[in-house]
Amino acid sequence: MPTETNVKYDNIEQVAVIGTGVIGASWAAYFLARGLRVSAWDPAPGAHERLRDAVDAHWPTLIRIGLTAGATRERLVFHDTLDAALEGADFVQESGPEREDLKQDLFRKMDDALPPSVVIASSSSGLLMSRVQSVCAHPERVVLGHPFNPPHLIPLVEVIGGEQSSQAAIDTAMQFYRAIGKRAIHVRKEVKGHIANRLQAALWREAIHLVDTGVASVADIDDAIAYGPGLRWAALGPFLNLHLSGGAGGIAHLLEHLGPPIETWWGDLGEPVLTDDLKARITAGVEAELAGRGNARLEAQRDAVILGILASKP
Amino acid sequence: MPTETNVKYDNIEQVAVIGTGVIGASWAAYFLARGLRVSAWDPAPGAHERLRDAVDAHWPTLIRIGLTAGATRERLVFHDTLDAALEGADFVQESGPEREDLKQDLFRKMDDALPPSVVIASSSSGLLMSRVQSVCAHPERVVLGHPFNPPHLIPLVEVIGGEQSSQAAIDTAMQFYRAIGKRAIHVRKEVKGHIANRLQAALWREAIHLVDTGVASVADIDDAIAYGPGLRWAALGPFLNLHLSGGAGGIAHLLEHLGPPIETWWGDLGEPVLTDDLKARITAGVEAELAGRGNARLEAQRDAVILGILASKP
Repeated sequence: MPTETNVKYDNIEQVAVIGTGVIGASWAAYFLARGLRVSAWDPAPGAHERLRDAVDAHWPTLIRIGLTAGATRERLVFHDTLDAALEGADFVQESGPEREDLKQDLFRKMDDALPPSVVIASSSSGLLMSRVQSVCAHPERVVLGHPFNPPHLIPLVEVIGGEQSSQAAIDTAMQFYRAIGKRAIHVRKEVKGHIANRLQAALWREAIHLVDTGVASVADIDDAIAYGPGLRWAALGPFLNLHLSGGAGGIAHLLEHLGPPIETWWGDLGEPVLTDDLKARITAGVEAELAGRGNARLEAQRDAVILGILASKP
Repeated sequence: MPTETNVKYDNIEQVAVIGTGVIGASWAAYFLARGLRVSAWDPAPGAHERLRDAVDAHWPTLIRIGLTAGATRERLVFHDTLDAALEGADFVQESGPEREDLKQDLFRKMDDALPPSVVIASSSSGLLMSRVQSVCAHPERVVLGHPFNPPHLIPLVEVIGGEQSSQAAIDTAMQFYRAIGKRAIHVRKEVKGHIANRLQAALWREAIHLVDTGVASVADIDDAIAYGPGLRWAALGPFLNLHLSGGAGGIAHLLEHLGPPIETWWGDLGEPVLTDDLKARITAGVEAELAGRGNARLEAQRDAVILGILASKP
């Protein structure tokens, strides 16, 4: 967890937040809470007002996490042009639309406008940096800095270089994110979904298979995770939990002992197809589980639990 | 979370805990904390002493969760014979060895000794109740009541009937577990690994694949979960989290919008084989991650986080 500090994050004092939708606005709020100046730009009508509202909405949570000394929302400046927002930026966090042609066009412009020493990180969840950076004169400073939603609350950031990214740019991004209290991990190869979304997708697939085959209801599967393994995964990742399950013999003993049954389960996992019928059944299951609970209340409950976990982690 | 109460759990006052290894001892401690009498049996040499020590070790955690009025460790009686432990029991929680022939032999004896009205629940993680109950004169009262380790801390219990289990026995088990503060879910079909272990296995498979293919280190994958999706899964299950990610349109919007990329990720998930080399690499990765941290400290940290989560859940 970030603590009070006046560190200037290795000379990064101003971050340009390019694209201020849900992800970009959450990033902007987080950077402000860490005492940074934020220069923002988004071409959508009404973007400025929505960004201000989003930062205001996130601020109480950020106060609970703890503001860096001197942090203030006054350090947010929304600009009318991309070039103006990039002026003076020491680091760029891009969160624009997820379309390769649009992203390439945006990166070409940013690459033209910025000194080559400024790292440009993209929040993209689905595009390859190798493709995006290929249109830049300085592709080496382009990296992926993929947050986990909502970025102002969840510490994980996945850093991935494209084929032309320099180690220096990856190092700068890793150090910057870590300095501002993020849990940055380096994904060593460009794979679809990076790491966290692949792990989620694997779990979703089996969860959806169990609904598809009538083994359990949507609500029961949610309970199975949120009152079962989810509790342990909030504390420790899957490998350390397996290690503890191995007792004195640890992970080596566990893999010897439980490896064969685990491989039997693997062989039995499902491969559902998201048909319209299955999607409708999942939706009906979620609606039954909600029993009228609204999203705002559910989200507030979830975020309160997450804040508690973050405060309790060593 | 259980609260102070004098309810007699629908006339269940004494639980026979048959098999008092790690799982059985944790169950015994939990039942005692809920104010129940526990009659225990295990044929292993030294079992009595180990059970007493385990209950003592779990008791501080159970005090933090909250004891039922009048709960005391004095209500634990260890017996020298199976029949003596079953005498007067209103419910049986069996946690013996995971071998079908041994389990059938044990269930035949318990079935002979107990009035037909007493439900016998097995903690088995791997055996089918249809096979186990097939040797009983009263197979209808045999069900699976599968806890998630450690049972005195993790609320999840998976209840599953075999082919001959009665709805009444399933209902009794569900109601009993819920009355004592467990989150019991009904698994409607006998499938390998029930629900939670299948979901875990799905995530483990992709985690191990990412190590196998050099995409990320063991430590980075652990961080990706424990500082990413694990935080959300501790609060809400996977479907409710997807619902919230869908914004105002909820799960229906999300499945329309994110369904195609999710299916693309599914097509790219790995199918690793647990070779000796891969097991050795996982073990080395865990050891590097531990950096000398001992299991006791790690487990205490984990359980402190879990206790905090349970206290913060609505």
